[in-house]
Amino acid sequence: MKRNAFIIRNILVLLLLTGWQFARAQINNTYNLMPVPRELKTNGERLDITQNFRVSVTGHPDPRIYAEASRFIRRLGEKTGLFLDKQGYVGQQDNNPSAPLLIRVQRPGKLDLNEDETYSLDVHDQQVIIDARTDLGAIHGLETLLQLISTDEQGYYFPGVSIKDQPRFAWRGLLLDVVLHFMPMDVIKRTLDGMAAVKLNVLHLHLSNDQGFRVESKVFPQLQRKASDGLYYSQEEIREIIRYAGQRGIRIVPEFVVPAHTTAILTAFPELASVKRKYSLQRYFGVFDPVLDPTNEKVYVFLDKLFTEMAHLFPDAYFHIGGDENTGKDWENNPHIRAYMKAHGMKNYMDLQTAFNKRILPILEKNGKTMMGWDEILQPGVPKNIVIQSWRGNEAYYTSIKRGYKAILSYGYYIDLIQPASYHYLNDPAPDSVNFTAAEIKNILGGEATMWSELVTPETVDSRIWPRSAAIAERLWSSREIKDVDDMYRRLDRVSLNLEALGLRHEAYKQPMLRRLANGYDTRALEVLVNVIEPLKIYERNQGDTMYSAFSPYTKIADVATPDQALPRIFSRETDLFLKNHEPALEKKITDQLLIWKENHQHFLETLRSSPELGEAVSLSENLSRLAAAGLSAMTFIHAGQQPDADWLEGQLKITEKAREQGGRCELQVVTPVEQLIKAAAGRDWH
Amino acid sequence: MKRNAFIIRNILVLLLLTGWQFARAQINNTYNLMPVPRELKTNGERLDITQNFRVSVTGHPDPRIYAEASRFIRRLGEKTGLFLDKQGYVGQQDNNPSAPLLIRVQRPGKLDLNEDETYSLDVHDQQVIIDARTDLGAIHGLETLLQLISTDEQGYYFPGVSIKDQPRFAWRGLLLDVVLHFMPMDVIKRTLDGMAAVKLNVLHLHLSNDQGFRVESKVFPQLQRKASDGLYYSQEEIREIIRYAGQRGIRIVPEFVVPAHTTAILTAFPELASVKRKYSLQRYFGVFDPVLDPTNEKVYVFLDKLFTEMAHLFPDAYFHIGGDENTGKDWENNPHIRAYMKAHGMKNYMDLQTAFNKRILPILEKNGKTMMGWDEILQPGVPKNIVIQSWRGNEAYYTSIKRGYKAILSYGYYIDLIQPASYHYLNDPAPDSVNFTAAEIKNILGGEATMWSELVTPETVDSRIWPRSAAIAERLWSSREIKDVDDMYRRLDRVSLNLEALGLRHEAYKQPMLRRLANGYDTRALEVLVNVIEPLKIYERNQGDTMYSAFSPYTKIADVATPDQALPRIFSRETDLFLKNHEPALEKKITDQLLIWKENHQHFLETLRSSPELGEAVSLSENLSRLAAAGLSAMTFIHAGQQPDADWLEGQLKITEKAREQGGRCELQVVTPVEQLIKAAAGRDWH
Repeated sequence: MKRNAFIIRNILVLLLLTGWQFARAQINNTYNLMPVPRELKTNGERLDITQNFRVSVTGHPDPRIYAEASRFIRRLGEKTGLFLDKQGYVGQQDNNPSAPLLIRVQRPGKLDLNEDETYSLDVHDQQVIIDARTDLGAIHGLETLLQLISTDEQGYYFPGVSIKDQPRFAWRGLLLDVVLHFMPMDVIKRTLDGMAAVKLNVLHLHLSNDQGFRVESKVFPQLQRKASDGLYYSQEEIREIIRYAGQRGIRIVPEFVVPAHTTAILTAFPELASVKRKYSLQRYFGVFDPVLDPTNEKVYVFLDKLFTEMAHLFPDAYFHIGGDENTGKDWENNPHIRAYMKAHGMKNYMDLQTAFNKRILPILEKNGKTMMGWDEILQPGVPKNIVIQSWRGNEAYYTSIKRGYKAILSYGYYIDLIQPASYHYLNDPAPDSVNFTAAEIKNILGGEATMWSELVTPETVDSRIWPRSAAIAERLWSSREIKDVDDMYRRLDRVSLNLEALGLRHEAYKQPMLRRLANGYDTRALEVLVNVIEPLKIYERNQGDTMYSAFSPYTKIADVATPDQALPRIFSRETDLFLKNHEPALEKKITDQLLIWKENHQHFLETLRSSPELGEAVSLSENLSRLAAAGLSAMTFIHAGQQPDADWLEGQLKITEKAREQGGRCELQVVTPVEQLIKAAAGRDWH
Repeated sequence: MKRNAFIIRNILVLLLLTGWQFARAQINNTYNLMPVPRELKTNGERLDITQNFRVSVTGHPDPRIYAEASRFIRRLGEKTGLFLDKQGYVGQQDNNPSAPLLIRVQRPGKLDLNEDETYSLDVHDQQVIIDARTDLGAIHGLETLLQLISTDEQGYYFPGVSIKDQPRFAWRGLLLDVVLHFMPMDVIKRTLDGMAAVKLNVLHLHLSNDQGFRVESKVFPQLQRKASDGLYYSQEEIREIIRYAGQRGIRIVPEFVVPAHTTAILTAFPELASVKRKYSLQRYFGVFDPVLDPTNEKVYVFLDKLFTEMAHLFPDAYFHIGGDENTGKDWENNPHIRAYMKAHGMKNYMDLQTAFNKRILPILEKNGKTMMGWDEILQPGVPKNIVIQSWRGNEAYYTSIKRGYKAILSYGYYIDLIQPASYHYLNDPAPDSVNFTAAEIKNILGGEATMWSELVTPETVDSRIWPRSAAIAERLWSSREIKDVDDMYRRLDRVSLNLEALGLRHEAYKQPMLRRLANGYDTRALEVLVNVIEPLKIYERNQGDTMYSAFSPYTKIADVATPDQALPRIFSRETDLFLKNHEPALEKKITDQLLIWKENHQHFLETLRSSPELGEAVSLSENLSRLAAAGLSAMTFIHAGQQPDADWLEGQLKITEKAREQGGRCELQVVTPVEQLIKAAAGRDWH
């Protein structure tokens, strides 16, 4: 049972001694704010939060500010436990200019790209004032204010600051794929709540793909009837999403992928296909050949009607047509299409896709929409008035900007790839290293995190979006110079708690999943293991798209293992530090931690007895145990100042090599630091 | 840090040694099944669950069985981690009679009271067969089968059993109040999932009250516009609820309360009131005077239109008109109404309410509905063809049955009162002690757990419904003779895990709430306290309806403290046992537990430093610490076989007395067992 005390102690002590100490120097500048505001000064005052707290609004805001101010009061009450019931809803009658919180707004904000989102926030002893040109800016100010809540012996208060804030980029998005796994309304809503909390302002909904068509069409009801498994949003629900998002200052950009990734559309309308075959919803994930026939005029009639209907349903000025991952095979396999290409002097299928896009563009334009697409659509001859979403690398991205296209960056923000927040955080849409002209910089609209949903379900999706997307949100909002990774992680820990209080389940989903996996209440051994593993990165977990389908279980050890685990990150820092300073307290901590890992395997095997499905993770657990034993052996040599022989080193390195093997589609995250201990003990590669 | 090891060890060891050992004898009869089936025999065979598992359906079912069978496969996959993707959806083509699971259904089930819900379930080595007259019975069989999943070294399997099952009562309901706190669609849906898992078959939606009107009316859109705060279900959403429930074999019974509890209706239509005043939504909870004017013909015109619209929206044969908690004051304060009563020879306001009900009855009857109401409507002259829902005590309930009314029992099933599952479990709708005739027994339709939502939110509601409602579900389904409380608790622990796997958050909500309350990640001290407290019972928490309003925070220590805490129950048993047998192992466990509680207060005070709102719970924590010290002192005397003096006893009893005081609207649940230790040490009440 000591084991467990060790674990908790170690996690906490490590957190206290490392993540926090590194960052303490910065607290005065950044508080717990994420994203960090443009400008922040402290003034030494404070406003105490009491039951008399009230909010007033003056000026000429959009009515959304009243609902948001009301929501602010409720959230403040939930956070502080204060009974702030005297002001149930903030309304136009609440315009007392000396209220504890005064919000002043010049004009209603519009949900347009480049709408003014600036605000200032001043906390003084008697009053907090948020000033903003539009209510959209004021809403950002409210989120900043909630992040400022502080406590001391006297209770809750807002610290005295003067903030002037505005975003670096106007397009700060999250793509949520609701096709590969459908996401119910409550997921959408809580995602929007989280986005607003970190000042993201575009939810890009990926609504059609080979696996389904997820919006009710009244013009073509066959789409939802035959091609959704009943998993789609009614138009009433779409309007509710748009209303809910708009309330929080978030635009909804819809994406309907054409001409490829259209198996769902072709399941409902096989006559639009390039190759005649039986179409049914795709149950696996990846890239497939089915594609609309661009030589068939019926395709354009269909898309005209469908896109016109959807253009009316979605009020945003941007409309995303996908355009990615066309294999071209079905076009090349159709003699008629080949002949058409030849007759029109097209060299390859991408020329045909460009011609197709040119037919789609006027459909969108007559509906007042700007076309967006993935970077594949950037082909010679594509009109300039479109927006390119870059995903295949920086080259395509830089090219589109230099060629005068507007672009948003997603390459480097693929949160489904299980990479750490630090990686995404340092991925700048306009890095120092590239010499953009001032005109080119203007083409950079911003960026979007992308949550593709092959391997996530409503149960796990939060843990893939949050908290990492908050780091991306900061990259898109804050200055380029804000890039201290330690301070980012310090603040991310706090913002993560705030996101949880909003209802996001990136932390809370773990315990139920561990209990289900353990088939009981004793999840301790499983948790020790889960805290040091991550799912295979990039797309390796799915073995080249062969393992998982729409009907697979997503309740496995790889689902409860989250990206960017804290414990391995901290352990790695500890070993680095120890190898530099040989600090006895660190030595003890590292040794204690290694002991826990070493002994955990026997407990894991007990859990396995009531949970056969954990069989896939036995090798991971065993490898962790052996790795820890190797680490302990290294620590003994280091402690004694003795050098082991070459056989020892060879033996230990075999263990680390084996510890790198996957198990249950996961991999251990603590191999490298233990390997460094081993090499240090052997007198080589000392740190 | 040892503290923490103690806690976890003690909880687990206590669970292992007590709850489980008492019940082990029964495992062979009841497995992990809840509700316990009518008849169960074992046959020594087993069906191994492998990737080749398939489901077939034969006979003439309602199509709902295909969706439920598909859902069954997904749940089986999630539970076992097996890739059961080969059968994505079960359909009519899946009719192979030798499939591993064969479901045979004679005819489509109708969502009617008294529809046949019987099924049999036979597990043999090669095949599981579920036989049912209707698909509703077959769905119950699928839930039973999921509860039977077992594991051993060879993997997952269904144990060989032959079950014949049918419900004792046809009406097995849960009332969900969506007015006092609105419950979004996802709460409704997961509640329905949980209900189906324990074979509850009626969701009674309480849809209007003083605080809001929660359904879109197309005839009177003022209702949702002026009297819902925007918190209502659209008719599309209501249809979706009905569809979703029907899919699981659950009826939806709507309740619109008249003539009292109508402040919301009167906010939209003040001209229908008995007293002219300004009406606005009630923000507090309780009993209020506003009431419809039964002498105003416009009231009946309004109710005719409204109830006709709602009768069409809700297809169920029963329609609940509330009828409860009319103070009568507004009637007596209106001279016109007083004169009307006099003119019609009415003695009191209840006569007038009966006359009102008689006007409502034909409105419902012409819409094919049976009227239901709370037991207040049972007045002389009320027609016999209505259903009485008993809530004010057994007397009203027995009276209504004896007088020939159909009745359902809710008295004793008020899960909002924070009473233990054992209390509800032993509350029988037709107890031995009452001599009902066979004809009278037929008047007992069943019962309903009632989840009134004054003090619950979407975040906490699951913890008040589950798992206790599963015990009520068993009471309503299983034989009267099934009433072993220990075995109930043993199985409740397992069913609770199953409910959690369905998405219910009665367990998972705790950690996020503890983190918010602690304002950080270290929640240990708070958890030690929370595990031994419960919110004040009955309606005491809300101090006579004066403390909480719709706008209050429900994120306090009383919200994370759940009803029916396991640790106090187990500790109490341990002390009982110890006082009988003086077992050294028990002595050590009790002492260790008391030490944890004693020392916890200092850690709690550390947590308090970053969470001022915990101030309201300081006395609880301090009392726990003192109580534990008193208990330790008692244990020392008992150990030494010495008798303390009278002063000692007096001093300790003062501590226990003080420990019974509320703090943060909660009370300690371990006072009585410690008091018993003290009295035993003092040589009195040694039992």
